[in-house]
Amino acid sequence: MCLIYDENRILVEEKVGTNYAGGLVFPGGHVEGGESLTASVIREMKEETGLDIVEPQPCGYKDWIQDDGTRYLVLLYKTNKFSGELKSSEEGRVFWLDRKDIPDANLIWNMRELLEIFEGDTYSEFFFEYKNGAHEPGKLLG
Amino acid sequence: MCLIYDENRILVEEKVGTNYAGGLVFPGGHVEGGESLTASVIREMKEETGLDIVEPQPCGYKDWIQDDGTRYLVLLYKTNKFSGELKSSEEGRVFWLDRKDIPDANLIWNMRELLEIFEGDTYSEFFFEYKNGAHEPGKLLG
Repeated sequence: MCLIYDENRILVEEKVGTNYAGGLVFPGGHVEGGESLTASVIREMKEETGLDIVEPQPCGYKDWIQDDGTRYLVLLYKTNKFSGELKSSEEGRVFWLDRKDIPDANLIWNMRELLEIFEGDTYSEFFFEYKNGAHEPGKLLG
Repeated sequence: MCLIYDENRILVEEKVGTNYAGGLVFPGGHVEGGESLTASVIREMKEETGLDIVEPQPCGYKDWIQDDGTRYLVLLYKTNKFSGELKSSEEGRVFWLDRKDIPDANLIWNMRELLEIFEGDTYSEFFFEYKNGAHEPGKLLG
């Protein structure tokens, strides 16, 4: 997942699908086997936003332990270096959100917590601890 | 793996064992099941260096695809916020290396490449591509 931003705006994606209609997330996707992580985030941003990003900066993680004991790991990147023209994909409409409109925006899936990771230096992880047979609510760690 | 640093020095570990005698690396270790990544790097730094670090900053990855198709992922953190007293472990002697002595230091295991990730904004990954049945030499990506 990657936050593409500039001084006044952040790029968001309106998720397609009845369960998330109108919900905003940051664009992202999956790493393919054999692909570098860097190539993956550059490719996903191109596919979902039309933009060519450079020098994506790692800034943290969203993660949890799955039922099979493996860890699901979402790598968080950010960049303010990009070129090209904005173009939405089937994944959802992408558009620039003015920073002044962030407080009222319909950010879903803990995007507000992740924004604290993307934009600050205090936190670098949003972790769902597994305890007594269930996942605890996610916590910001740093 | 974590680079603990200040303005004039970086913390290095002299690996124990005949194969690496005298070779310098940055302290690190393994994430335990169920543990957050943040707790892991804080714990490993305490165990290997005696220092209590705070706000470790993710800055990149060293990674490659293993024979079974899974990815081996080394998470790179850095911090200049720490307290406590330096104390070596069985893993190796830890000591401060003056920045002026870095060029002549016996850094092994691609630590020089990783240092470019830790200390610069250009690169965030050292990746060994798997091609034609073998791993290519590692490359810095960003």
